[in-house]
Amino acid sequence: MDRLTGGQERLVGDRLRHADPAAVLRAARAAGRTTLTAPEGRLLAAAYGIPTPAEGLAESADEAVELAGQIGGPVALKIVSPDIPHKTDAGGVRVGLSSAAEVRDAYTEVVRNAAAYAPEARVEGVQVQQMVPEGLEVLVGAVTDPTFGKVVAFGLGGVLVEILKDVTFRLAPASMTDAESMLDDIRAAEVLRGVRGGPAVDRTALADLIVRVSRLAADFPEIAEVDLNPVFAAPEGVLAADVRIVLGDGPPPRRRRYAKEEILASMERLMRPCSLVVIGASNEPGKIGHAVLRNLLDGGFDGAVHPVNPKGGDILGRTAYRSVADVPDGADVAVFAIPAPLLPAALEEVGRKGIPNAVLIPSGFAETGEHALQERLVAVAEKYGTRLLGPNIYGYYSPWQRLCATFCTPYDVTGPVALTSQSGGIGMAVLGFARATRTGVSAIVGLGNKADVDEDDLLTYFGADPRTRSIAMHLEDLKDGRAFVEAARETVREKPVVVLKAGRTGAGAKAAGSHTGALAGDDAVYDAVLRQAGVIRAPGLHEMLEYARALPVLPAPKGENVIIITGAGGSGVLLSDAAVDHGLRLMTVPDDLDAAFRRFIPPFGSAGNPVDITGGEPPATYEATIRLGMTDPRVHALVLGYWHTLVTPPMVFAELTARVVAEFRAAGIEKPVVVSLAGDTEVEEASAYLFERGVVAYPYTTELPVAVLGAKYRWARAAGLLPGGGAR
Amino acid sequence: MDRLTGGQERLVGDRLRHADPAAVLRAARAAGRTTLTAPEGRLLAAAYGIPTPAEGLAESADEAVELAGQIGGPVALKIVSPDIPHKTDAGGVRVGLSSAAEVRDAYTEVVRNAAAYAPEARVEGVQVQQMVPEGLEVLVGAVTDPTFGKVVAFGLGGVLVEILKDVTFRLAPASMTDAESMLDDIRAAEVLRGVRGGPAVDRTALADLIVRVSRLAADFPEIAEVDLNPVFAAPEGVLAADVRIVLGDGPPPRRRRYAKEEILASMERLMRPCSLVVIGASNEPGKIGHAVLRNLLDGGFDGAVHPVNPKGGDILGRTAYRSVADVPDGADVAVFAIPAPLLPAALEEVGRKGIPNAVLIPSGFAETGEHALQERLVAVAEKYGTRLLGPNIYGYYSPWQRLCATFCTPYDVTGPVALTSQSGGIGMAVLGFARATRTGVSAIVGLGNKADVDEDDLLTYFGADPRTRSIAMHLEDLKDGRAFVEAARETVREKPVVVLKAGRTGAGAKAAGSHTGALAGDDAVYDAVLRQAGVIRAPGLHEMLEYARALPVLPAPKGENVIIITGAGGSGVLLSDAAVDHGLRLMTVPDDLDAAFRRFIPPFGSAGNPVDITGGEPPATYEATIRLGMTDPRVHALVLGYWHTLVTPPMVFAELTARVVAEFRAAGIEKPVVVSLAGDTEVEEASAYLFERGVVAYPYTTELPVAVLGAKYRWARAAGLLPGGGAR
Repeated sequence: MDRLTGGQERLVGDRLRHADPAAVLRAARAAGRTTLTAPEGRLLAAAYGIPTPAEGLAESADEAVELAGQIGGPVALKIVSPDIPHKTDAGGVRVGLSSAAEVRDAYTEVVRNAAAYAPEARVEGVQVQQMVPEGLEVLVGAVTDPTFGKVVAFGLGGVLVEILKDVTFRLAPASMTDAESMLDDIRAAEVLRGVRGGPAVDRTALADLIVRVSRLAADFPEIAEVDLNPVFAAPEGVLAADVRIVLGDGPPPRRRRYAKEEILASMERLMRPCSLVVIGASNEPGKIGHAVLRNLLDGGFDGAVHPVNPKGGDILGRTAYRSVADVPDGADVAVFAIPAPLLPAALEEVGRKGIPNAVLIPSGFAETGEHALQERLVAVAEKYGTRLLGPNIYGYYSPWQRLCATFCTPYDVTGPVALTSQSGGIGMAVLGFARATRTGVSAIVGLGNKADVDEDDLLTYFGADPRTRSIAMHLEDLKDGRAFVEAARETVREKPVVVLKAGRTGAGAKAAGSHTGALAGDDAVYDAVLRQAGVIRAPGLHEMLEYARALPVLPAPKGENVIIITGAGGSGVLLSDAAVDHGLRLMTVPDDLDAAFRRFIPPFGSAGNPVDITGGEPPATYEATIRLGMTDPRVHALVLGYWHTLVTPPMVFAELTARVVAEFRAAGIEKPVVVSLAGDTEVEEASAYLFERGVVAYPYTTELPVAVLGAKYRWARAAGLLPGGGAR
Repeated sequence: MDRLTGGQERLVGDRLRHADPAAVLRAARAAGRTTLTAPEGRLLAAAYGIPTPAEGLAESADEAVELAGQIGGPVALKIVSPDIPHKTDAGGVRVGLSSAAEVRDAYTEVVRNAAAYAPEARVEGVQVQQMVPEGLEVLVGAVTDPTFGKVVAFGLGGVLVEILKDVTFRLAPASMTDAESMLDDIRAAEVLRGVRGGPAVDRTALADLIVRVSRLAADFPEIAEVDLNPVFAAPEGVLAADVRIVLGDGPPPRRRRYAKEEILASMERLMRPCSLVVIGASNEPGKIGHAVLRNLLDGGFDGAVHPVNPKGGDILGRTAYRSVADVPDGADVAVFAIPAPLLPAALEEVGRKGIPNAVLIPSGFAETGEHALQERLVAVAEKYGTRLLGPNIYGYYSPWQRLCATFCTPYDVTGPVALTSQSGGIGMAVLGFARATRTGVSAIVGLGNKADVDEDDLLTYFGADPRTRSIAMHLEDLKDGRAFVEAARETVREKPVVVLKAGRTGAGAKAAGSHTGALAGDDAVYDAVLRQAGVIRAPGLHEMLEYARALPVLPAPKGENVIIITGAGGSGVLLSDAAVDHGLRLMTVPDDLDAAFRRFIPPFGSAGNPVDITGGEPPATYEATIRLGMTDPRVHALVLGYWHTLVTPPMVFAELTARVVAEFRAAGIEKPVVVSLAGDTEVEEASAYLFERGVVAYPYTTELPVAVLGAKYRWARAAGLLPGGGAR
């Protein structure tokens, strides 16, 4: 006899773990359903150890008492009859039954009531169900994100949080550490720890539930959404009152992936080539094939550069080959500057020639709706193992090679910053900003349509490239979110990765079959997953550019204690505001250190933090207090607020600050030092002087230096360099 | 016989409005209490028409039935006995009683139960209480803010919102319009309109309740806090389940206020003086009294400047007077550059001379703990009606008068921007930024300790000053929040006011006697009240400076329809993100306009909004689409995204854009146009060219131009220039 809702067993509970979820899913599919029934949902939940209320069907008072005993807590009894849809009206429900006697009486009563209410009704028995304990309502779910695949969601349940969208996500399957971090990640995290003297929920049980849901979703591609809403979280444990599972088509086909060694091998030849061919090279100024060749030749690249043009002849003083097949020896990179329709055939020749990298400048592919043409390129490339950069890009710069494979203006300031952009316009802003700030660059790469090479390839290369010390990427989408996260995690251990994800607010409405689905707006998932990957998300283009150039200037902090030293009390207040905004911890200054600062500052100045040395102080006061901050090992980073005065002019301040920082660096003591300079225009020169000497300094802003330090800290925490850190 | 909890009447309700709140408050004070009892709270509530559950005391079943009839809805009965603290345990509570028969039976039952439970108990009767209807829990309260005095608070009740701090404030008393705007001001505003098909609350009743609470708080200085938590808000009305009132010491003494005419009269003489005296003028370079006199003389001020120095003689070529008393004729301004301890006596002389304005550069007053010395200054000033600027300031600039009454470097670029700073350091940043950007300035004023003249005086003056078209103020506190709000409201009708309020995050914990008090962190109140006053709050120093210089460049928008026209699709996405961030409404482009745009752009470009003209387009495409946006009266503002290409170089774009905007301006069509330029460094020159011609343009950033436009819109809404606007 089968008394169990769902069909296998008498009592839902541990025993149900024997149910075969795959069989349940197959059956639902076979029945043409895209949503599991509640009993099916409970079966899957049970199979994954996701606690739902225990329940069973009793056909006698004795059985009811036995079931209640097995459940072992207060139970509810509900009449089960296909002819009594409204059980309560029929007097067919009794709740809060604890003792055997209560259960026995209630059984008799609901059966009698039902008989009185509907004498003809077929009664199948009485459902004995565990009472849901009082607890905080939370939501645990999983969805299939178009970029990242299965992600698990957690938030507080209830209408308010649905509106306030206080929910967080992690890639599924999630680890216990991931799940525990989710509990701290929501804005209302405090509620879980108990408020107004209330009890805290069982965090371990809740995190365990999240892990189980993430595994269920990850194990079955055909599960599109899982929605446990509400889950009751109490000090004694957690219980999912409702399990909703939506089926889907499974994941979209995955892009071809290359092994790390393959990526590094082709990228090395792309970024440090010995020879290039320019297909579509031209003598005609104004043509892209002319600009690219000229930039390559003028830029000072010392490898071989071969023009290719069906007309042959001489182009910019070099012999042009009629076909890439005619080029002597091989080449590392083929740069294409020919119309889109001619590209597949030319790419075929490049493939046959064994050139490993194709840089596809032309537009006229997916971005203009020509998806088929782009797919043809990809097919040719895959046939020959040729990697494609683009199409629809400005090209790329590799300044250490003096390589400007672009139609834009050359750039030759070498340094540690690697920059990529999906959009050509943003690429031009990157170039202009780099030139305006003389940012030393290891690469600027256009990614465009990302038919093949994308951010994860570049992250893998830049992560391994010893000349790159910070990476900044503008992106509008990720073609393979999982590959990006993997590459980012590995790279972030060594160097900061800044991401400007465009399209934050344009997500728009998404059709979704569950609450979790509705909460998973594109950006909410991006935001959580990018943080999980340890990248620094820049709020805008300007910040991306400033973080990229400033982060490698600063040494990594060794602890969380930040001190502000300021000549202007007004700057001190604004710097404190900014420190809180950017997640920095202003050190509570120990008494001895406080006393040490006080020895250098006027009696009406204020120690504590900010240390306000007051405006009229001479260079010696700045120097003494900065030295103190550098010396004390309990201090991990300095934020300086300079005030332009007659007594301490800007360049005097800049010189002493740079000198002190350099002196400590020479002695092996490195701490990040950032400066806000308030003053007349001489502070611009002073800022530049400091920046060039390893002190990140900006005029007329109290926010930007602190934002940069905040970004450095975010990276240091993600890279595991700080106690209590970890990817958040 | 007196059956009413609270003491006056039988049934709390309309009749209770006769209660005298002042008498209740006096009685509580006389009893030495700082918190009203619940019945006292209900009395005050009733007197102000704040609905609380109706209730009364019945001594017989008949009386209970009568009371229940008067209450007219479901009621609860509760035994009233000083000897039965736990009513429920005694079976002394019955709820949900609707009919007379139920009430009668319940009365008998609770009395019998009580007698059985505690035979010796003195029973005073049975409380008959209106059942609180189901409804959304909200919080309505009032607190006494140190800056703004009485403010009324509104938020959603419950533990989540207490943690998420989703609460808003308005000055008390609040108007019905204020109160209605509060309902939309919280993040969870949607909940009040009904969610998941649930009903909306009675917004009029809720707003009315807020108004009544605000009046109660405003009417009685001795009420420190009012806390109605929870208020149940339902479709049928609202009911305050609990009323908590905390008494305090009344408001702090108010600063002396001057009438608008008095302010304008003295400020006019400060900002446009005919003659100044410099007290403490010196021949010694490095002394402040030297620098001030030199700046006045070198700056080109064409009024009289008289040095005063007890040694007399000749200073910088001018005859120095030994005392201000010796100066022939009068003067409009006395600038002080003497040590703090000498200041009161010198100020006395200035007062006797009838000089209306004293500019107090020296420090060494309240900011160093010398409060008494500062109070002496104020006392002298009030005796003579002398207005004080400072102390502890760098002085002030009035460029239209070529007046540099400061010890800093002169500044002579005249224009429409008035800037003030509380801090000297920030003042120096203001000066440097202005010089670096060649911002045309009408005034730069240091406010320092604000012993007398403060932001409201300057707002009043700048509001009336025809040369000032935008005002930006850095402030750390307000000495008279109400006066500021009054002056700001009046000024904002005519010109934008930007405020950088420092100390946002430093509020720290505040002792509070109620939930409302705990929610009213300094910044939460500042933020809400500043918005209510219609000022634009800048998130940081950099934004304050940019808004100040850019806002007067743009004409006011005449509607909310913003269109983005971009050459770079990538910029379009980032500009859209920024538009949403800054509260702009991207126009849904009508079909005919969409078709008109499409005629100018390539087939693979995209109309809609952003209008993506694509990267390779010539100047004519930019020009045609910008003209279209300027021409169509349904479009109210343009955001342009320029992409540096060979086909349309930066200066070509800048020239055509400036020309088109000027042409329309000449024809009487003015719309704000802002531009983000992505490109190589030539875009810097192009941005400057545009800025000088009335088009706000920035290189390398997609955020700043949109942030400026957003600020302009915030002002236009606050100034009532846009339909559906108003101070928010």
